[in-house]
Amino acid sequence: MKKEYDLKNLNRNTAVLVIDMQNDFASQEKNPPERWDQIRKVIPNIRKIVHQARKRKIPVIYTKEMHRASGVDFGIELDFEEEHCIEGSPGAEIIEDLKPQKEEYIVTNKRRYSAFMGTDLEILLRGLKIENLILTGAFTDVCVLATAFEARAKDYRVIIPKDSVIGTNPQRHQAALACIDYVVGYITNTENILHSIK
Amino acid sequence: MKKEYDLKNLNRNTAVLVIDMQNDFASQEKNPPERWDQIRKVIPNIRKIVHQARKRKIPVIYTKEMHRASGVDFGIELDFEEEHCIEGSPGAEIIEDLKPQKEEYIVTNKRRYSAFMGTDLEILLRGLKIENLILTGAFTDVCVLATAFEARAKDYRVIIPKDSVIGTNPQRHQAALACIDYVVGYITNTENILHSIK
Amino acid sequence: MKKEYDLKNLNRNTAVLVIDMQNDFASQEKNPPERWDQIRKVIPNIRKIVHQARKRKIPVIYTKEMHRASGVDFGIELDFEEEHCIEGSPGAEIIEDLKPQKEEYIVTNKRRYSAFMGTDLEILLRGLKIENLILTGAFTDVCVLATAFEARAKDYRVIIPKDSVIGTNPQRHQAALACIDYVVGYITNTENILHSIK
Amino acid sequence: MKKEYDLKNLNRNTAVLVIDMQNDFASQEKNPPERWDQIRKVIPNIRKIVHQARKRKIPVIYTKEMHRASGVDFGIELDFEEEHCIEGSPGAEIIEDLKPQKEEYIVTNKRRYSAFMGTDLEILLRGLKIENLILTGAFTDVCVLATAFEARAKDYRVIIPKDSVIGTNPQRHQAALACIDYVVGYITNTENILHSIK
Repeated sequence: MKKEYDLKNLNRNTAVLVIDMQNDFASQEKNPPERWDQIRKVIPNIRKIVHQARKRKIPVIYTKEMHRASGVDFGIELDFEEEHCIEGSPGAEIIEDLKPQKEEYIVTNKRRYSAFMGTDLEILLRGLKIENLILTGAFTDVCVLATAFEARAKDYRVIIPKDSVIGTNPQRHQAALACIDYVVGYITNTENILHSIK
Repeated sequence: MKKEYDLKNLNRNTAVLVIDMQNDFASQEKNPPERWDQIRKVIPNIRKIVHQARKRKIPVIYTKEMHRASGVDFGIELDFEEEHCIEGSPGAEIIEDLKPQKEEYIVTNKRRYSAFMGTDLEILLRGLKIENLILTGAFTDVCVLATAFEARAKDYRVIIPKDSVIGTNPQRHQAALACIDYVVGYITNTENILHSIK
Repeated sequence: MKKEYDLKNLNRNTAVLVIDMQNDFASQEKNPPERWDQIRKVIPNIRKIVHQARKRKIPVIYTKEMHRASGVDFGIELDFEEEHCIEGSPGAEIIEDLKPQKEEYIVTNKRRYSAFMGTDLEILLRGLKIENLILTGAFTDVCVLATAFEARAKDYRVIIPKDSVIGTNPQRHQAALACIDYVVGYITNTENILHSIK
Repeated sequence: MKKEYDLKNLNRNTAVLVIDMQNDFASQEKNPPERWDQIRKVIPNIRKIVHQARKRKIPVIYTKEMHRASGVDFGIELDFEEEHCIEGSPGAEIIEDLKPQKEEYIVTNKRRYSAFMGTDLEILLRGLKIENLILTGAFTDVCVLATAFEARAKDYRVIIPKDSVIGTNPQRHQAALACIDYVVGYITNTENILHSIK
């Protein structure tokens, strides 16, 4: 029933989202060795996509999860996770390898898993007349999954290069992609994205 | 890091959500034999939970996915699925085995996977002072998953009895539960729910 | 600073909203004589706009404020108003003079003043590709005002024929129109609307 | 029908909102003389409320309207207003007389009139367990009005000291207060607020 999606559509009305590639989520010191091993393979792929998007004038949007130092905005999250991405701390900064350029967009103050909730992401996407969203970043089964479902609900085409997103572990990475692939978005790889937006 | 959740909390501020148990999703004629085999095992479990909730005066809320006959509100969904749950059609009705009682709540006009989007669910939950949401129904990896993520973002405790939700297939059922279990909610079974709200 | 708006734009991507013209708000028995005197002058104007919209295939969307009989969804509203628009009661029905036709749209389950909150109005408007919203109905300084502000925030052009909306009293009618006129929308009259969509 | 509100409630679960008191809205150089005359009378009142709130440990929340330099997030607003509050410009900074203290809350990235839309205000208010919102700032008939209506829709008690908010002109100031006073919130004055939170 799901129709094939022609990646040639990515040549117009497309944005690249780089989700939460911040030190607290994507640095060597904050991750167990196996996960870091995944992350360091994914970073160059995201860089390639970002690089080509820049050449093609496709907007690149970075999201930053951030929490107030008092912890007031975590809601019930601290029952599931340690504190993370405290405003002003190095952990909240985007990793050196993916530093945004001056003219690129940063969506800050993301307090929840979905990049839409409590942020200006939707206003920004509408302003840019975006229809297709290439999702990259961390983590496939948490913020990428939440953002993919809400993007689809708002009628954005969600395209995920599976080797440009990182799961909290390989099983949940596959699990999230399987759920998204069914009726939410389109799973592809970095190579195909690079080919489609060239 | 995830803290254990004490199911004794379910004795207060709890609601049971019965998600999209409508003919188009949960009847024998609309499902392949293997999936129907799952569904017919799950229905009695949901019935047990609903029955006990009624005895304990725990609110039961049924959601109904519905779409206008013209198809105007499907957004891009028809690129992923056939038409379903057309207003006024038998397919949009809740299955006979789970008919709501007169005083129970029905959230209608659900146009998207998350039961919160474009509905009065949040207004209803706040009016009822709900903190814990027991999710049951269909499908684990689509509407249940979307609703679980949005409920968690709004700081509701999400509790899912894994044998009272149905996946679009067994792999995606497990996949969705694995994603939810990590940092979104608590996976348990019907037996434990019945024991906790007795 | 505010630019003039060319009403010729109404020839495309326009919808007419008929807000809360229900018995509890717009019938003779539920209103003091002075307000009823206003209402009975406004109804024929709304009818003219609806009639011409139908001829021109401009979608007409009726909103219905509705509340569950238990009162659970009123929030703090009962500290400001008496109970109203109870589901299933005659007071919740649209007045006889403005009965929707079969193919027209009704947005139900409106629990708050803004017609967007907790309803599928935004999904419907996006499905219809609407850019211009002609607001009519009741009351200028309550639900029309709330809906106008939220529509503008979502980048819809708000056009209000001042003799097709009813205020809770003449002072607040003028007050709301003055606030909307400044930077939210465009105030005109029924005559101009009829001329523009003919 | 509207019930009286006991301002003694302000002794608990209350926050003070200081809306958009930024140079582009509230400085002498950006305002015509008559409006500046109003503003310079209101600033000391807001200062008194903020001062007393600090003493009483009542949270003070400042909102900042901000727009990206490219103008991408203005939506249709530039058809109604000149550019304003560009990120990084002095015009976007809070006026010297109302500088937030280090531990106070600032809600940034406000792109629309309502302080709730596209911001983390609701997450913050829920984290602080706020039920009563004292609104101060600019402008009564634009951002204060939009925020008051959305706060009421979310069941916050809206209390507005009429001499601590500034209208775009005296008529619209009165107009907005009249609309809010009817069924949205409670209009009082600075003196009463100071007395209630002492």
